Amino acid sequence: MTHPVLTVGSVAFDSIRTPFGEVSRVVGGAATYFSIAASFFSEVRLVAVVGEDFGERHMQVFGDRRIDLEGLQRVPGDTFRWKGEYKLDLNARETIYTHLNVFQDFSPRVPERFRSTPIVFLANIHPALQMEVLDQIEAPRFVALDTMNYWIDGTPAELERVLQRVDAVVINDEEARQLSGKANLVQAAREIREMGPERVVIKRGEHGVLLTRGDGFFAAPGLPLEEVCDPTGAGDTFAGGFIGYLTAAGDLSDDAVTRAAICGSAMASLSVEDFGLSRLLSLTDEDIRSRFEAFRRLTHFDELDY
Amino acid sequence: MTHPVLTVGSVAFDSIRTPFGEVSRVVGGAATYFSIAASFFSEVRLVAVVGEDFGERHMQVFGDRRIDLEGLQRVPGDTFRWKGEYKLDLNARETIYTHLNVFQDFSPRVPERFRSTPIVFLANIHPALQMEVLDQIEAPRFVALDTMNYWIDGTPAELERVLQRVDAVVINDEEARQLSGKANLVQAAREIREMGPERVVIKRGEHGVLLTRGDGFFAAPGLPLEEVCDPTGAGDTFAGGFIGYLTAAGDLSDDAVTRAAICGSAMASLSVEDFGLSRLLSLTDEDIRSRFEAFRRLTHFDELDY
Repeated sequence: MTHPVLTVGSVAFDSIRTPFGEVSRVVGGAATYFSIAASFFSEVRLVAVVGEDFGERHMQVFGDRRIDLEGLQRVPGDTFRWKGEYKLDLNARETIYTHLNVFQDFSPRVPERFRSTPIVFLANIHPALQMEVLDQIEAPRFVALDTMNYWIDGTPAELERVLQRVDAVVINDEEARQLSGKANLVQAAREIREMGPERVVIKRGEHGVLLTRGDGFFAAPGLPLEEVCDPTGAGDTFAGGFIGYLTAAGDLSDDAVTRAAICGSAMASLSVEDFGLSRLLSLTDEDIRSRFEAFRRLTHFDELDY
Repeated sequence: MTHPVLTVGSVAFDSIRTPFGEVSRVVGGAATYFSIAASFFSEVRLVAVVGEDFGERHMQVFGDRRIDLEGLQRVPGDTFRWKGEYKLDLNARETIYTHLNVFQDFSPRVPERFRSTPIVFLANIHPALQMEVLDQIEAPRFVALDTMNYWIDGTPAELERVLQRVDAVVINDEEARQLSGKANLVQAAREIREMGPERVVIKRGEHGVLLTRGDGFFAAPGLPLEEVCDPTGAGDTFAGGFIGYLTAAGDLSDDAVTRAAICGSAMASLSVEDFGLSRLLSLTDEDIRSRFEAFRRLTHFDELDY
């Protein structure tokens, strides 16, 4: 039997412009990317909110995947909306607007039968909401959290409290520096561990991932991709592959976490090849396995011999 | 018997300021870093020029290493001088001044007994000088070249001609983008290969190295370092470890090139731990081997298992 993972975060309508094209009002959101990516590995329990404008055809992105939607509330009002634009340097993006809409008054409610979920991923939302969800889970075995500059700056006390209760943070390098106040990532990881999380996972976009392992680090470069179409959701997709793999493995050892980071990297590298969720929605297990092997080919080297 | 490698490039006096301190008028230069790094692996033949101010005590950096100095000219005038400053982001540096001095009228002369050297590294100097050296080598087996934005912009025709005669370029990511006119590194590598070099090695600073391998790429992340003191010469030190290893191995296969890239990365990661040449000058073979193993520990992951 495979273990389930519970996530809370945004389900959204995204409008995205990149140098390669534009899509308008497509389904997105951190919890959506996370859930779909994780569902390739394990059962997912989604806690989120949408508005009345989120119809049956939008629900189809969750399709017949292993995503339990009992915790997805539908309330009066409009769904969360975000519009962003990427220039030629796909590492930088500009937010055109963020309309919280139904997220403004969101009070996450974890359904009774979700409360014993062993693995929890708190996607990037207000740390007070992350805490509300955590309070409803009985004795979680492993809790991971994402956050962003907006909360690090704006709600540091709430963030600090929830960090004390999580096992892993999954953030990008700028966020790691900002959260820790350290420019050097070795020092940043150490500072963050002192805030609570044993495991620090730093996403570096096209430069791959760096995470604490044993008394050192594991690092994987990014896969060089010729066609990067849309980076939206790449970080959440990484988290989905990472936590989804760990959940399925039922193993939190350094070795499992390392393989999980490669799974997350593989999922993210696939996701960016098309707009929004498109690539994720067409993925097969074979695509994932073959991308994992591409990472091995990319990084493998033999014993030194001189 | 180990093969020798010949290099041409700058020997200089550097003044360096970083957030961690300052040194003034210490021996540096691309060919110096390259030669010292490469000499841990193979015999090096140095072609360069210094002025009358470059005395016996400065010569001591070459010490009793396997560096043949017959091609090092001493001429009237001052040695090349460079002063640079790094801010907290050690990836960016500002050049305070560059005084070419004796390099202004440098005409590289390859000693007779160096002319059959099989491996050549053309460090970053005017492409016309790189060509002059190449013209004096009989049937080299493997030629690698470094260059910079100044030559890519300023002397594109000369650079194009010398590129047609080299087997490998060893440049940083910005240079690869500028040389190829492609922002995407997969496309950049392809464009550069069409200019002549079969092998494209892209140095990414703290993000490691990316190089063409087979019909794909090899990538290694940078080693996370807590103490980065001075990045001066890191790229040339990488090239020294990389080409020095290949020279000693007498093997230009994909596997050897991959291991060479890890050796180069190991050497560069050691070099930045102290100012100027200091760390390189105190290095032991055991330091290098142990740093190579640190790269293996950093990047190793097991088969996927799910």
